[in-house]
Amino acid sequence: MTDRSGTIERLTELLGDRLSTGSSVREMHGRDEAWTPTALPDAVAFPESTEEVSRIVAICAADGCPVIPFGIGTSLEGHVIPVRGGISIDTSRMNKVLEIHDADLDAVVQPGVTRSQLNDELRASGLMFTVDPGADATLGGMAATRASGTNAVRYGTMRETVLALEVVLADGTVIETGTRAKKSSAGYDLTRLFVGSEGTLGIITKLTVRLHGVPERISAATATFPTVAAAVDTVILAIQSGLPMARIELLDEVMMQGMTLANPDMSFPEVPHLFLEFHGTETGVEEQVAAFREIAEEFGAGDFAWATNTEDRNRLWQARHNAYYACKALRPGTAAMVTDVCVPISALADCIAASKTAIEDAGLIAPLVGHVGDGNFHLSILIDPDAPDELRRAQGLAHAVNRLALEHGGTVTGEHGVGSGKMKYMEEEHGPAWAVMGSIKRALDPHGILNPGKIVPGN
Amino acid sequence: MTDRSGTIERLTELLGDRLSTGSSVREMHGRDEAWTPTALPDAVAFPESTEEVSRIVAICAADGCPVIPFGIGTSLEGHVIPVRGGISIDTSRMNKVLEIHDADLDAVVQPGVTRSQLNDELRASGLMFTVDPGADATLGGMAATRASGTNAVRYGTMRETVLALEVVLADGTVIETGTRAKKSSAGYDLTRLFVGSEGTLGIITKLTVRLHGVPERISAATATFPTVAAAVDTVILAIQSGLPMARIELLDEVMMQGMTLANPDMSFPEVPHLFLEFHGTETGVEEQVAAFREIAEEFGAGDFAWATNTEDRNRLWQARHNAYYACKALRPGTAAMVTDVCVPISALADCIAASKTAIEDAGLIAPLVGHVGDGNFHLSILIDPDAPDELRRAQGLAHAVNRLALEHGGTVTGEHGVGSGKMKYMEEEHGPAWAVMGSIKRALDPHGILNPGKIVPGN
Repeated sequence: MTDRSGTIERLTELLGDRLSTGSSVREMHGRDEAWTPTALPDAVAFPESTEEVSRIVAICAADGCPVIPFGIGTSLEGHVIPVRGGISIDTSRMNKVLEIHDADLDAVVQPGVTRSQLNDELRASGLMFTVDPGADATLGGMAATRASGTNAVRYGTMRETVLALEVVLADGTVIETGTRAKKSSAGYDLTRLFVGSEGTLGIITKLTVRLHGVPERISAATATFPTVAAAVDTVILAIQSGLPMARIELLDEVMMQGMTLANPDMSFPEVPHLFLEFHGTETGVEEQVAAFREIAEEFGAGDFAWATNTEDRNRLWQARHNAYYACKALRPGTAAMVTDVCVPISALADCIAASKTAIEDAGLIAPLVGHVGDGNFHLSILIDPDAPDELRRAQGLAHAVNRLALEHGGTVTGEHGVGSGKMKYMEEEHGPAWAVMGSIKRALDPHGILNPGKIVPGN
Repeated sequence: MTDRSGTIERLTELLGDRLSTGSSVREMHGRDEAWTPTALPDAVAFPESTEEVSRIVAICAADGCPVIPFGIGTSLEGHVIPVRGGISIDTSRMNKVLEIHDADLDAVVQPGVTRSQLNDELRASGLMFTVDPGADATLGGMAATRASGTNAVRYGTMRETVLALEVVLADGTVIETGTRAKKSSAGYDLTRLFVGSEGTLGIITKLTVRLHGVPERISAATATFPTVAAAVDTVILAIQSGLPMARIELLDEVMMQGMTLANPDMSFPEVPHLFLEFHGTETGVEEQVAAFREIAEEFGAGDFAWATNTEDRNRLWQARHNAYYACKALRPGTAAMVTDVCVPISALADCIAASKTAIEDAGLIAPLVGHVGDGNFHLSILIDPDAPDELRRAQGLAHAVNRLALEHGGTVTGEHGVGSGKMKYMEEEHGPAWAVMGSIKRALDPHGILNPGKIVPGN
């Protein structure tokens, strides 16, 4: 264990009691929602400005001490775990919405702002922030992991949503990666390089994000399908027909059992479902709904249940967002290990079918949800955390699903990111391109202090 | 002048008569459509496969000889000019559409495929490729310059359109930067890093691009406005209202004079115009048109002229795409120097007004067109190329407009790219982020053989 007392002393001079070495604070910053082994930071810093982040990083750089940015700890692959100790930089005190530009449909925020906080502050403007991972994550964390969610099929992921970033580099230098102009061809796309870099290239201290107008009419529904394949075929044809679906989510029959158990006030038939949302004008939504019904019925869709008012709609999507927790009701006392893969939509039905066979082979319960309009799906593998054999089988199942995604021309993570959990697939997914990531990392962080052990080879 | 005879000999062994040192071929590859001074390559290579590109680059790397990828030569800032000699790699023989995936709405193409070629080959599929710079550029070139065009407001630029690339690196290594999955969080976004890198980080040898369904109904129109500001205010409100405009193009009163002169069969009032296109279902387009008319009339819009059939619509957009050439009719015998800037849409009216003052101050004719839904506009500054004073004044005007864009929080290039022409603004636009681009360049191309002299500092 490296002695960091000198670094901690210098950081305490800068931050006073906003540098914490207390064990409970360190423990909170030593884990996320992944199954990765925890590891403690030496201390946790709570900066209040970009200037402070810059000075923290400069101090750590001088000492060769790792720095790990921390949003709210909802990442799912061990992104924020300080595998080599060091300083966890908690951005929770940098939580201001700095600017809202109505005419430009963008906002400038600090990294600790959460998505629900931003949407609350936008309420009066008639605008909305559309990226919605299940958790109420911070925007800094969402940018760092290239997060997406249920709306990405229509409005894009953080890749499309972040217009520009302010970033503190490995030596403390502060850069801006773009302007508020909607497009630019002025050199390398540093914004997109930092989005998804998981704190390994710099610390995000400010974000300019795109907003969208709240549509005149929003209509949500659930629809039942005889098989998962029928639901997926419906999705393919809907997307191919150019239907501008705002949300199109698959929940398999196992997940629907869990949903019913966890939401006693909402009763669902235990068959595969699509959860749907349509955005547009009054007549536009009516048209979309009619066109969608026609496609869905072609594939044997049964009941449509409509959430007609805002309250019902919110309840529906809250239930969907809570699916990760809900499904534990299928086997009380268990924990869920979550996988995340994404394939070309034409390969989705096959990949899901093969995954369901792998679930049977593993003898485990693993409900499936998917942002299927993007070809992205998750399993929540339910296990007794105290049964080593189940943990092994669950890990084997997760591994099998990741392999299936690669075999189907896809990626081992559609939205959760690499963290520590997906490192083992990087070489296979990227081939020699992985070494290019390593070269970029060494160029920007030659001493390897930025969230070491993540994303790149030999880091 | 470096002696490249050894390199040329080795390349001739590989390529036979597909390595040309003829002076007319070299001259064709020593310029683009910019005002940048020309410079000749030592030879031009015409590879037919990725493997050949890789071997060419490996041979040049061993000799420290520059390599410059060349599509069709329509770039506007000197991107393809071999400022230090070397080998121009012409991709015109790598011009096959390799795969079209209907269900996934994507296609895999070689870099020499042009946008009109791809759309021709897509005709039977009901799909379309949406990025449309004025020229019939190659997709490799469009990716390298992060091109966009009139449809970008609805469908995005090459940034959003390229899903994955195959790239030959500076040592000849071939990498793939992604999969056909619609999204991924698996590490650094190398696809977006190479898009817009103008051949300075690698040579694009294959592209996977997103396609869109041809909409059920397309309706195009022109609308007149009393002032440029009224037209811009209309655009702002239309975008803010969430109208999914497929195209919304500004042409000022000077450009409209040129359009009338150049298109005798199309007569336009000599006032500012918006050229519009609406995509959607039958009723969706009707609704959009009605909503747009209401907004436009609020700002004093006059005549709407509708292009109701495909032929009229194509004629209208062909005229718009030819505006760059058309406007020369305003002053026969002149040449056009084109500028390209992009600002937040809220700053657009101000930035255009200040630019028009700068035009008056310069005493030049400079019609204006703009992809105003994105805040992007161009001037075509008409000059007598044999009058050094006019050239100086035109350069001064172009400089003034670039400065105005920066002062209005924008970028010195919305879509044309950096090339040689915009190098002088890179430091001011990017500040310390420019050095980060330099670090990335050195990491990926340590000997500086890839299109030297472009984008990065001291290169």
